[in-house]
Amino acid sequence: MKVLVMYYSKSGNTKKLATEIAKGVREVEGVECVLKSVSEVTEDDFLTSDGIIAGSPVYFGTMTAELKDVFDRYVGIRNKMGDKVGAAFATSGDPSGGKETTIMSIIQAMLIYGMIIVGDPLDATGHYGVACTGAPDHITATNAVKLGKRVAALVKQLKNLA
Amino acid sequence: MKVLVMYYSKSGNTKKLATEIAKGVREVEGVECVLKSVSEVTEDDFLTSDGIIAGSPVYFGTMTAELKDVFDRYVGIRNKMGDKVGAAFATSGDPSGGKETTIMSIIQAMLIYGMIIVGDPLDATGHYGVACTGAPDHITATNAVKLGKRVAALVKQLKNLA
Amino acid sequence: MKVLVMYYSKSGNTKKLATEIAKGVREVEGVECVLKSVSEVTEDDFLTSDGIIAGSPVYFGTMTAELKDVFDRYVGIRNKMGDKVGAAFATSGDPSGGKETTIMSIIQAMLIYGMIIVGDPLDATGHYGVACTGAPDHITATNAVKLGKRVAALVKQLKNLA
Amino acid sequence: MKVLVMYYSKSGNTKKLATEIAKGVREVEGVECVLKSVSEVTEDDFLTSDGIIAGSPVYFGTMTAELKDVFDRYVGIRNKMGDKVGAAFATSGDPSGGKETTIMSIIQAMLIYGMIIVGDPLDATGHYGVACTGAPDHITATNAVKLGKRVAALVKQLKNLA
Repeated sequence: MKVLVMYYSKSGNTKKLATEIAKGVREVEGVECVLKSVSEVTEDDFLTSDGIIAGSPVYFGTMTAELKDVFDRYVGIRNKMGDKVGAAFATSGDPSGGKETTIMSIIQAMLIYGMIIVGDPLDATGHYGVACTGAPDHITATNAVKLGKRVAALVKQLKNLA
Repeated sequence: MKVLVMYYSKSGNTKKLATEIAKGVREVEGVECVLKSVSEVTEDDFLTSDGIIAGSPVYFGTMTAELKDVFDRYVGIRNKMGDKVGAAFATSGDPSGGKETTIMSIIQAMLIYGMIIVGDPLDATGHYGVACTGAPDHITATNAVKLGKRVAALVKQLKNLA
Repeated sequence: MKVLVMYYSKSGNTKKLATEIAKGVREVEGVECVLKSVSEVTEDDFLTSDGIIAGSPVYFGTMTAELKDVFDRYVGIRNKMGDKVGAAFATSGDPSGGKETTIMSIIQAMLIYGMIIVGDPLDATGHYGVACTGAPDHITATNAVKLGKRVAALVKQLKNLA
Repeated sequence: MKVLVMYYSKSGNTKKLATEIAKGVREVEGVECVLKSVSEVTEDDFLTSDGIIAGSPVYFGTMTAELKDVFDRYVGIRNKMGDKVGAAFATSGDPSGGKETTIMSIIQAMLIYGMIIVGDPLDATGHYGVACTGAPDHITATNAVKLGKRVAALVKQLKNLA
């Protein structure tokens, strides 16, 4: 079983958040984590992953063009993506500057890929995903681990192995 | 195992769509379906259901106040709703008049309830949920059955019984 | 010229934010401000206002049922609302808990009322509207004044009186 | 006065819709229209336009990466874009396949650019913008003209010249 954590990061904050999420994925026994920036992601990563967690800094309210380009590019394998698990994360400059709508833009793409969607669990913040303003602080990092763990555990459960 | 299909309907179109979805739920052996209008739904329906599929006509771009009121009302049991399965449907007057944003408003509420979200499956339309302009035609009815079936099958799978 | 600032508030935070926005409206000479909770708003308030600024706490990702009910209720006068100015604000418990999607749910309703929409100006945060976690601090209060002022100034400009 | 109508189009449907919108802009005396695909748009087009109407086919629920890239690219002139008029349009394959969320993704970008937003007018459909499934039919073309006209008329009015 494999979960892809993919991100676009310019300042490094989104990469930091991705790294924490990857830790959470790896806490679930039997689930491997592939952590990649969008420039490294291949069609094969999409096909061979059982779950995808995607993240972006906020640029004008939705995911960056670079991350969107990954989703747009693999339209040809859309019919092989159904029932994989999906989740999202975002970082922003302004506290109400588009984190939520960025996460929702990723979730919308994943729904159209036929994926099964979760936000961060109720023992984290219980919302659309993990998000922070600037670099992730300790609480956000802890919530990021919980999101990674949730996705990995669900991947395992869906294979009746949990 | 139980799936609640709840709807608000004024013209009857959303009720018709709900009825088709309920048929789909009932096609999955071992999963019961409770079909209720929002005025009949109780807190106990939320607590005892393993999945919820909620639908609304479009009123100004998001779910009607009546359906929103149900979600708002049960905030006290939010921490008991995690990992239930959720999905949404909508009917509209205008073809681009808010069906999608109405479905997304329901999905947002379900994510904050900690639920696991699916859209209609890739062999239906593979988007945010089931939607139509006016009364459901034969194709939409077929897709509605598929959405009901997807949610019921996922509920069963999550209990390792599929 | 008149701008209606309407809000639903339970804890008092959204009312506080509304009050700051009303101050901003009143700073523009010749523009009157009516500040009302949703339970006080009448159809006549909608009809006689040249601008509406609406706010809600976050309940499950979109405006509360009580505020939505106001928008739903006045569907009969929708065709008289075109080209009025609209804007939105929100308060939340969690920093990424639905402020933005709540503001967007209000903006969606206003677009369907045919209104002309602005967010908070670029010299505030330049995003969807004014929002804060918990009670408004000094910076948020300042931005709230700027949003009120922007709406009032635009109302005046549209009447060629600015 | 100038309005930029910009689009990304692969099948040609979004270009057709853009062309109709441009007709509407040109119906308003004194307002010039620049019609360009995203690959032709320059920073100077953003700076010198008084209004922007942007359109995209639906790719996974939000504007295409190519259109998003235009918005992302001009972040450096964001503080010069305030109070320009913005509107959006979209075409899709599926009737409920993401037209509305694509339009909203464009509107979100424009709000963060500090722009003043309108949907299609109440005598068109009175929703988020102009949208159609497949190529624009006669009714959609008529509504597209009305959207172009609305934006151009508002641009003129904001300059106190209407």
